[in-house]
Amino acid sequence: MLVKSQVKYIQSLGHKKHRDEDGVFIAEGPKLINELLNATQLQPVNLFATREWLEANRSGIFEKEVVEVSILELQRISFLTTANQVMGIFHKPIFPEIEIKGKITLVLDNIQDPGNLGTIVRIADWFGVQHIVCSQDCADVFNPKVVQATMGSICRVQVLYTGLQDFLSAHGDIPVYATSLDGTHITDMSPMEEAILVFGNESKGIGAELMHMIRNKITIPGRGEAESLNAAVAAGIILSHLVR
Amino acid sequence: MLVKSQVKYIQSLGHKKHRDEDGVFIAEGPKLINELLNATQLQPVNLFATREWLEANRSGIFEKEVVEVSILELQRISFLTTANQVMGIFHKPIFPEIEIKGKITLVLDNIQDPGNLGTIVRIADWFGVQHIVCSQDCADVFNPKVVQATMGSICRVQVLYTGLQDFLSAHGDIPVYATSLDGTHITDMSPMEEAILVFGNESKGIGAELMHMIRNKITIPGRGEAESLNAAVAAGIILSHLVR
Repeated sequence: MLVKSQVKYIQSLGHKKHRDEDGVFIAEGPKLINELLNATQLQPVNLFATREWLEANRSGIFEKEVVEVSILELQRISFLTTANQVMGIFHKPIFPEIEIKGKITLVLDNIQDPGNLGTIVRIADWFGVQHIVCSQDCADVFNPKVVQATMGSICRVQVLYTGLQDFLSAHGDIPVYATSLDGTHITDMSPMEEAILVFGNESKGIGAELMHMIRNKITIPGRGEAESLNAAVAAGIILSHLVR
Repeated sequence: MLVKSQVKYIQSLGHKKHRDEDGVFIAEGPKLINELLNATQLQPVNLFATREWLEANRSGIFEKEVVEVSILELQRISFLTTANQVMGIFHKPIFPEIEIKGKITLVLDNIQDPGNLGTIVRIADWFGVQHIVCSQDCADVFNPKVVQATMGSICRVQVLYTGLQDFLSAHGDIPVYATSLDGTHITDMSPMEEAILVFGNESKGIGAELMHMIRNKITIPGRGEAESLNAAVAAGIILSHLVR
């Protein structure tokens, strides 16, 4: 059974401030929870699960942290429209220090939409990209909506928040690419082992000062009339051409 | 000023049944509305706009159909979290009969998420794909959330709802492709002029009976660990390799 203080605490974790204070985040649903429980980098703090889930997952190793809840109780604490069997509070993953030499790294400037950010983390994971560097004004990767959209990739891709101009300056030896309407066609480019790929805000694109630091422009050629592509779709397309 | 019957009518258009009865749909926000007003295939039934929008768009030609509303009134009828200057009711576009010979066509089996469907319409438009054929259980392309996610591409891409097995049977001379984990790598394929590309449900993939009709499998090679890619991202990647 849930006690009031637990409900309040879980609701507080909808806010970045409280997640940061305790170094934890929330995930939901049997598929995602099972993937996170299997990830060696992650430790669950608490699980709140229905009897249905508990009976299907009787390993016993979670006994200490599990609270059995009714589906109504779960709905009360869920961040989903429809609660789904189990919610977990996890310690944020701890990654080794970021090393981007010889790798492909994504840099995100002010990506606001949680679904977009989560989808980009999932795409990075698909293509084996280990690091995503976000501007401080991007959505928080531990926002419950982002966590859900990563479909578990959040335990494998390291997401770092920092000033992007300083980050690019500190890695001046790695070629930096951004999408633009007048760049080299992605279909004419060869796969590469090392690059920084920059993607910008959903409506404003990449900030002017940052754009000024980027010499290599890539275009995704289209023969239709849409004005732009969604940032996550563009990231997926570019990685599919550059990663082999 | 808004009258009560207008509020009720607009709210009713959140339901497919009512949109179908009147052959209309709703769009919102200055960018999308201006794009739809410029589309020759579309006729506005009504616009509900704030003074701010009206002053910036004084062409006069819309006088008959425009209702000036306060931002509070607009918020009352809006399907967005935050109402944005203008809402329009439009007649659905009328397209000529579908002709897919010699073209690339997307086929969607049970795509449920409105954001995914809208993003796929936008991607199709980017790559010049003119037709999308949906199973009857896909989300409705005139659902307000889908319309917003298309970013205006809804006036250029024709979306048809029909039985997919019958559709494929009727076009047996056109090669049909689907994504799978054991297909030909997309990076090894050449651009093509004519194809039917099938994408399946977000969690269940392509239905077994339909899958049975598809002989050509495509794989998007990844070297990471994510289990799958979002359907819209997969569509974008495949089109970026096949359309030239």
